[in-house]
Amino acid sequence: MRTRTDIAAAHTGASGAAYDRMPAIAGVGCTPFYRRGGTVGRTAVELACAAILDSLCDAGLTADDVDGFALFSGGLDVGLLVETLGIPEIRFAATVAGSGGGSAGSVGLASAAIASGMASVVVSVVAVQQLTRMGAALAPGDGSGQYAARPTAQSDFTIPAGLLAPGQAFAMIAARHMHEFGTRREDFAEVAISTRANATRRETALMRTPLTLEQYLDSRIIADPLCLYDHCLESEGAVAIVTTSLARARGCRNAPVRVLASAHGGSGDWGRAIGAFNMPDSVFASSGHTAVARTLYGRAGLSPSDVDVALLYDHFSPMVIMQLEDYGFCLRGEGGPFVREGNIRWPGGALPVNTHGGNLSEAYILGMTHILEAVEQIRGTAVNQVPDAEVALVTGGPAPVPVSALLLGRE
Amino acid sequence: MRTRTDIAAAHTGASGAAYDRMPAIAGVGCTPFYRRGGTVGRTAVELACAAILDSLCDAGLTADDVDGFALFSGGLDVGLLVETLGIPEIRFAATVAGSGGGSAGSVGLASAAIASGMASVVVSVVAVQQLTRMGAALAPGDGSGQYAARPTAQSDFTIPAGLLAPGQAFAMIAARHMHEFGTRREDFAEVAISTRANATRRETALMRTPLTLEQYLDSRIIADPLCLYDHCLESEGAVAIVTTSLARARGCRNAPVRVLASAHGGSGDWGRAIGAFNMPDSVFASSGHTAVARTLYGRAGLSPSDVDVALLYDHFSPMVIMQLEDYGFCLRGEGGPFVREGNIRWPGGALPVNTHGGNLSEAYILGMTHILEAVEQIRGTAVNQVPDAEVALVTGGPAPVPVSALLLGRE
Repeated sequence: MRTRTDIAAAHTGASGAAYDRMPAIAGVGCTPFYRRGGTVGRTAVELACAAILDSLCDAGLTADDVDGFALFSGGLDVGLLVETLGIPEIRFAATVAGSGGGSAGSVGLASAAIASGMASVVVSVVAVQQLTRMGAALAPGDGSGQYAARPTAQSDFTIPAGLLAPGQAFAMIAARHMHEFGTRREDFAEVAISTRANATRRETALMRTPLTLEQYLDSRIIADPLCLYDHCLESEGAVAIVTTSLARARGCRNAPVRVLASAHGGSGDWGRAIGAFNMPDSVFASSGHTAVARTLYGRAGLSPSDVDVALLYDHFSPMVIMQLEDYGFCLRGEGGPFVREGNIRWPGGALPVNTHGGNLSEAYILGMTHILEAVEQIRGTAVNQVPDAEVALVTGGPAPVPVSALLLGRE
Repeated sequence: MRTRTDIAAAHTGASGAAYDRMPAIAGVGCTPFYRRGGTVGRTAVELACAAILDSLCDAGLTADDVDGFALFSGGLDVGLLVETLGIPEIRFAATVAGSGGGSAGSVGLASAAIASGMASVVVSVVAVQQLTRMGAALAPGDGSGQYAARPTAQSDFTIPAGLLAPGQAFAMIAARHMHEFGTRREDFAEVAISTRANATRRETALMRTPLTLEQYLDSRIIADPLCLYDHCLESEGAVAIVTTSLARARGCRNAPVRVLASAHGGSGDWGRAIGAFNMPDSVFASSGHTAVARTLYGRAGLSPSDVDVALLYDHFSPMVIMQLEDYGFCLRGEGGPFVREGNIRWPGGALPVNTHGGNLSEAYILGMTHILEAVEQIRGTAVNQVPDAEVALVTGGPAPVPVSALLLGRE
């Protein structure tokens, strides 16, 4: 029987040597995750290098093998990483534009470096420190509060109205979804509660106490309709991913996890979303992922029904519901009922989501933990393992354009 | 007779459809160039969009055709560009890591986007405004003075010693080159004077009065041994480049300018250069381009003798001399004599350099003007046209890793 990975491979038209040159994740690594302030006295470069060495060890490679960096949400100085790790030479060093939307996209960028022949072993890494200047550059903060709004033509209109933090911006989108489609706060709660349930079983998670609907509804509203538990954590730590060619990954310590497809970008309509809100109704109450989803499935030759587990960027719980719609797991406006029916639960749901505990309950490393979990699911080593998971969807964002996504699968 | 461009094409092994998918520059555009402060009241996005529209017009394309951005020296918000230009959808948005070293690399990154199939019409753009916050983010300032040094483990040692600005850092490298190889201030002067001579004939240039050796030697020292005329200008404006596939470029308004090869990156040894100075002697008095040069020539199947005109990143005049060495136009340490003998002069020199007036005398748009000039040279439309120019070298940097380079040629 042809597997879905075979189908995706056939769809690309690649065979033989071209197939061997396709991208694959060979290693993943991370530091422990800390609450805000937990890494005081350490530098972001130190955290990043610890995660990189962990990922290289996972792959059975060394710093001598690395010849590229594909990042997002800039702030890490590639020269410092190269020096600190003693990397002999790099041939690719680039960053996906934008902020949290590029987490999955950084592995897509690594894939482009490999496909174009510019580099052969490419590291994607994010280190988050909330309290240092470098950490601030790395993590502009998706939570409410510490956000230094950029002065733009748009923000001249929104800042005087008090729209400063991402939580406030995404509250507008969540409210619109409730207004348009009857989505309820209980639906947002289901995302927070199911994600927490997954986190309770994981030693890496910062939040391991089960969350009840009563607790959710009793918690304070931070930006109406978003309450405390709709917001991701403010945490610290680092995650690194090593991408290489399939041929090279086959010689590594763990089985290759293929990048079946990657996509980043977005429609111009949604480029206006955050902090502006002058976009058409067709995209207002959405995650802004529709264009990327179409490109992604098209490149892989797969459809939503082929996805076994979805790791969806969850900086705010309503955005998970909108991504479920935009990636075609349910119709537009039906994300609320979809989660209400238990579909995203592990175990047993039709589409387990954020089996690692996500940004909401494990740790917020700008979405990089979602890639790590996808790799573990495809390898079959996840704590909350989806039986026989063959295809995993990973998203970065929603955030301003570009947003990003990956489809990962077994060889 | 096979042209050098044919040789480069053959070297890549590409033919037929693969050849048609190779990258080419279809359009270039810019705003006028201004002295520091000359664009007060305008935004960096406005300048960037003006340059982009100019480049699209040059190509005979519109904003509807654009589906990617490949930038460097971040600061421009891709979402704002997409919105302002009304671009329907983008599928690639990334930035070469580092600062001025990525100018040529941004076109290389566009090439990777095209080669990997992620995007089809990719814009590279830089807008420089010295006096606004966004301008500051775009242009951290290669001149001395306004530089906000980043706090790093290294800078804890160098900032207390007064090493704050790039001019001070590159003065150390220039002094080392003088010490090691007997290079003279008169050699640095030859770079400044020959570049100025080229600028005098161009209406776009900010500095059009001829510079004499006497003036050079009489000018004030800013960071010993670098005097005023060894420093690039602090200017404002924007430059945009449109890269697409050769097949698509053939249908554009102007003849395609092929990207024969692109490379960016650098050796770990030189990653330590700026602000640290603890690197080995082998790389101390160099531009840090040796590794990129080797990769670049190797990818194109060309050698230094194939290059007709060189557009070398000239933030500080001594770095032109070191790039001439590192790109193999003369032996290491012989850059001084090479320029002393008139080799970089236009017309008549063996290798005309910075025929547009460079960062030193035309305008400092972080090296993007060098790409613009290379395209004009290959099209045969340059003001200071090198007769029958077939292959042009463009570099970005020297700056911390990554540095970058392009070989451009006729189809």
